[in-house]
Amino acid sequence: MKKIEVNDCEEVLSSMRLIIGNLKEVIDKLDKEAIKAMLQKTIDGNQVFVMGAGRSGLVAKAFAMRLMQLGLSVYVVGETTTPAVLPSDVMIAISRSGETRNIADLGKLAKDIGSTLITITSKKDSTLGKISDIALIIPSQMKNDHDGAGYLERHMLSDDKNMFPLGTSFEITALVFLDSVVSQLIMLTGTSEAELKLRYTNI
Amino acid sequence: MKKIEVNDCEEVLSSMRLIIGNLKEVIDKLDKEAIKAMLQKTIDGNQVFVMGAGRSGLVAKAFAMRLMQLGLSVYVVGETTTPAVLPSDVMIAISRSGETRNIADLGKLAKDIGSTLITITSKKDSTLGKISDIALIIPSQMKNDHDGAGYLERHMLSDDKNMFPLGTSFEITALVFLDSVVSQLIMLTGTSEAELKLRYTNI
Amino acid sequence: MKKIEVNDCEEVLSSMRLIIGNLKEVIDKLDKEAIKAMLQKTIDGNQVFVMGAGRSGLVAKAFAMRLMQLGLSVYVVGETTTPAVLPSDVMIAISRSGETRNIADLGKLAKDIGSTLITITSKKDSTLGKISDIALIIPSQMKNDHDGAGYLERHMLSDDKNMFPLGTSFEITALVFLDSVVSQLIMLTGTSEAELKLRYTNI
Amino acid sequence: MKKIEVNDCEEVLSSMRLIIGNLKEVIDKLDKEAIKAMLQKTIDGNQVFVMGAGRSGLVAKAFAMRLMQLGLSVYVVGETTTPAVLPSDVMIAISRSGETRNIADLGKLAKDIGSTLITITSKKDSTLGKISDIALIIPSQMKNDHDGAGYLERHMLSDDKNMFPLGTSFEITALVFLDSVVSQLIMLTGTSEAELKLRYTNI
Repeated sequence: MKKIEVNDCEEVLSSMRLIIGNLKEVIDKLDKEAIKAMLQKTIDGNQVFVMGAGRSGLVAKAFAMRLMQLGLSVYVVGETTTPAVLPSDVMIAISRSGETRNIADLGKLAKDIGSTLITITSKKDSTLGKISDIALIIPSQMKNDHDGAGYLERHMLSDDKNMFPLGTSFEITALVFLDSVVSQLIMLTGTSEAELKLRYTNI
Repeated sequence: MKKIEVNDCEEVLSSMRLIIGNLKEVIDKLDKEAIKAMLQKTIDGNQVFVMGAGRSGLVAKAFAMRLMQLGLSVYVVGETTTPAVLPSDVMIAISRSGETRNIADLGKLAKDIGSTLITITSKKDSTLGKISDIALIIPSQMKNDHDGAGYLERHMLSDDKNMFPLGTSFEITALVFLDSVVSQLIMLTGTSEAELKLRYTNI
Repeated sequence: MKKIEVNDCEEVLSSMRLIIGNLKEVIDKLDKEAIKAMLQKTIDGNQVFVMGAGRSGLVAKAFAMRLMQLGLSVYVVGETTTPAVLPSDVMIAISRSGETRNIADLGKLAKDIGSTLITITSKKDSTLGKISDIALIIPSQMKNDHDGAGYLERHMLSDDKNMFPLGTSFEITALVFLDSVVSQLIMLTGTSEAELKLRYTNI
Repeated sequence: MKKIEVNDCEEVLSSMRLIIGNLKEVIDKLDKEAIKAMLQKTIDGNQVFVMGAGRSGLVAKAFAMRLMQLGLSVYVVGETTTPAVLPSDVMIAISRSGETRNIADLGKLAKDIGSTLITITSKKDSTLGKISDIALIIPSQMKNDHDGAGYLERHMLSDDKNMFPLGTSFEITALVFLDSVVSQLIMLTGTSEAELKLRYTNI
């Protein structure tokens, strides 16, 4: 890469403001009934599985860490000792397009097994959105957001001055939403601090 | 877990608002000189390495995916084919406490090798904060935030009504900040959409 | 698990002897022309990608670590900063059945992209075996080995006294074979000890 | 890499024979009492944790997959939902030198917690070898094997004609040994095929 001189950090700060603005707008558009159903199913599930590809997969793992600390039997699809999914289990898929190859296939498989499928997505009419027991829709806030999976989903998105790789807004919103789900789960389960501490990874 | 009935999702929504409020307050407290220095070093580095433990490690990976798409030679410490760190390289560590075992040790090692160490942390006076070439401080916004690493760092934190596992605010802010760093790096490097697309994982 | 008393370790020792016996028989059945072609393609490839599911994926990673130390540009499919596959690249798939979901799909995709596909498998007539540029066949040595993917592939296999989960023989043979490929690659490339040491992960 | 022509694959085949020869010699040198103790502790442990760095970590994961299928509560140190280690648990460390940074530290921590520490190593007098409840010694078979951790451990080792990266022999032997441990555990626990199948990852 050629010598580039950095003279300011204005784009960093204005991008942060743009992301925060998007987050604020999303809150009011979330489906409260879907959130309640998600909370209930997550508590009632025997085992909870999470999955996602790429950065959505990282958000899924960040959520799984918290559920483990809450005392749930939770597993990340694809990790070493993840067991079989059974009908009494809950599968939570994170996929902006709802079409991500492999994740959509595994979502169908989870439904075939008879488990409960919850999808966090921005596309209600996607493959995953349509087959899910609960589809938690995170509306896309960026201008010029393109529908459809595949290449288009991965294009860069210009928003006047700020440029974000497409998906950035979805992934951050999903993380903020799921950490807030954890907050309510802590209260609902009445888990004490002492119990929580016992479950933190000590190794 | 006993039968628990979910009657509302108010805690989810108020937690989201609390997180967003924290994010807004943080922006004005960021050190602009440190951000500029981080942008410059990241562009100038021969190879970029990222590391973090637990959820901070997931944030590091999310950042690394974007740097790869930008065309940088970027590696996650601990992954299969991550090469040796050389003096011309940049190591970016993410650690709220700046004391996380292993990450602090590897930070020292990176300095011994002669590479540039950048730390994203909320503790300027921590082990990592003190030895870093650039310490990007994300001020902790939660009430009652406790200093010190170890058990205290991992305790649950009550904020009146909302409960978050400690670290939640730091991790989300780090992700929003780093995605905004990516936004400015796209503009600085003048990477075209065509070039970016070529580098997206196609497998 | 109920109290079980361990009185000897005879099954461990006889199982080790059985595995070694299988390994010895396999050597003479390997296709030398396929091995030579694999060595040539691996050296000639611009970038090398490896992939596999489950334990075969772990063997793929163990191989990738060595190729990295040899100085090749090597990536594991699915890791954080793995770039796009290009026509000048080599994709090495490890799949006993040659039908493993996702790995077979990605193998087809690699062929569509125009890259060279090398498969380590025990089924020449499998999906992956048929579409590969080079299919390196590791003949199955266990008695009663069952053809076909899916459930059958995962059954436990009884060999008179010893029981192995099916796949054990394939995975160990693949690891021994690939480590031996590394041995010849070291000689072919004339990589000096000093160069190799430089590339060992130091972090 | 310059154009290199591959004319034969003799080094691959002779390297395979050398590895097999090493494996055969190791069997008679294994400590049967240590193996019996390891089997007993693994069965008796409440939860089983495994860990290792680099290629030894991959061997640890391959073992963990089988233990999970056997129905044990098994976790890989460092994975997303790995819980806290408790005194009633068993920690299995794989480290050729017995000195691997981080793994040795975590071994000490496991002992401090009060859990049972089992180490697979080639160095009885190493840090891990000395503090372990059971040290399963895999004698190093290669000529000129160098003691000591750090750089020396990672050097390349010339054995007349064949060259192996140091550690190759240990890692393969550890995998063959642990897969054979699984074979005896299947018999000891009397796990039926039907039970085993239920636990195979279906997603």
